[in-house]
Amino acid sequence: MVQPLRILGIDPGSRITGFGIIDVVGGNHYYVASGCIKTLPGDELAGRIGVIVENIGGLIRQYRPRQAAVEQVFVNANPAATLMLGQARGAALAALVVQGLPVYEYTALQVKQAVVGHGKAAKEQVQHMVVGMLGLSGTPQPDAADGLAVALTHALRNRGLAGRLNPNGLTVKGGRFHEI
Amino acid sequence: MVQPLRILGIDPGSRITGFGIIDVVGGNHYYVASGCIKTLPGDELAGRIGVIVENIGGLIRQYRPRQAAVEQVFVNANPAATLMLGQARGAALAALVVQGLPVYEYTALQVKQAVVGHGKAAKEQVQHMVVGMLGLSGTPQPDAADGLAVALTHALRNRGLAGRLNPNGLTVKGGRFHEI
Repeated sequence: MVQPLRILGIDPGSRITGFGIIDVVGGNHYYVASGCIKTLPGDELAGRIGVIVENIGGLIRQYRPRQAAVEQVFVNANPAATLMLGQARGAALAALVVQGLPVYEYTALQVKQAVVGHGKAAKEQVQHMVVGMLGLSGTPQPDAADGLAVALTHALRNRGLAGRLNPNGLTVKGGRFHEI
Repeated sequence: MVQPLRILGIDPGSRITGFGIIDVVGGNHYYVASGCIKTLPGDELAGRIGVIVENIGGLIRQYRPRQAAVEQVFVNANPAATLMLGQARGAALAALVVQGLPVYEYTALQVKQAVVGHGKAAKEQVQHMVVGMLGLSGTPQPDAADGLAVALTHALRNRGLAGRLNPNGLTVKGGRFHEI
């Protein structure tokens, strides 16, 4: 029996972090869970970071994915919004890395090309394709659909390679640490 | 005997994260440790995030600070640099929050005002004041000095209030978590 490869997909956002979890068995993909982590806009930054980190940690403990796929984000015209988005994405990546999960990154263009077939797809087309590919009975909320889409992208771009993927992904490679 | 309040100060940066640890006993401040966490520019983002998270986690386990003070960062004219800085800062905050440490934030202006006495101080003046206030025998590297400076800022702005500080700081306040 083939052990399914469970993938956690994350679409980071400054207010809403979408997630989707799928199982891959050969060329087949099965829905496991999806949803979104919403931070309260009035909350202090540390509190919002905490919500992201604790909920992603909870998902990993509950569903035990083996790999993570994270969507790359666009820089925004508003520098403060870009900084906030960066902080939320950094917290999401930290939550994955701290649990030892290998992380793979995909651009929005790669996600659309993998799931819809071309890079100019609208959000609704991504949702529609996710519903079809996973045989869902309802349409996930857009951020949850994006979480599922990036997980599917990882599966599709490595089709048949599941066993050959570097099991360590992009884990910590070193860096320098000095005390003075 | 008064229990010292141990503060971990963090100055986040996209390539170098400075840190400084001090003990506060009444109105006196004692140097404990300082240094910097450097990520390798050629590394994948997840690897760089991992270096930050794992080293801050290691500092907390080794030195057991009770509170954390983190410098707020400026948005940069370059959006990609701002996004990277945000991601590094988000990872640093995540590393503190995941260990249950209360986090307090201070702007660069607040740090300069607290440590030097005015907001237009140069980096060298901050280093010089940190050396004097902590009775150091050498001058810390600039990022390490900034880590010590933000820890000192937290101590000075709450002078005599150590026992009255909200021990929970800015911990997680809630947020919403939905599965669909």
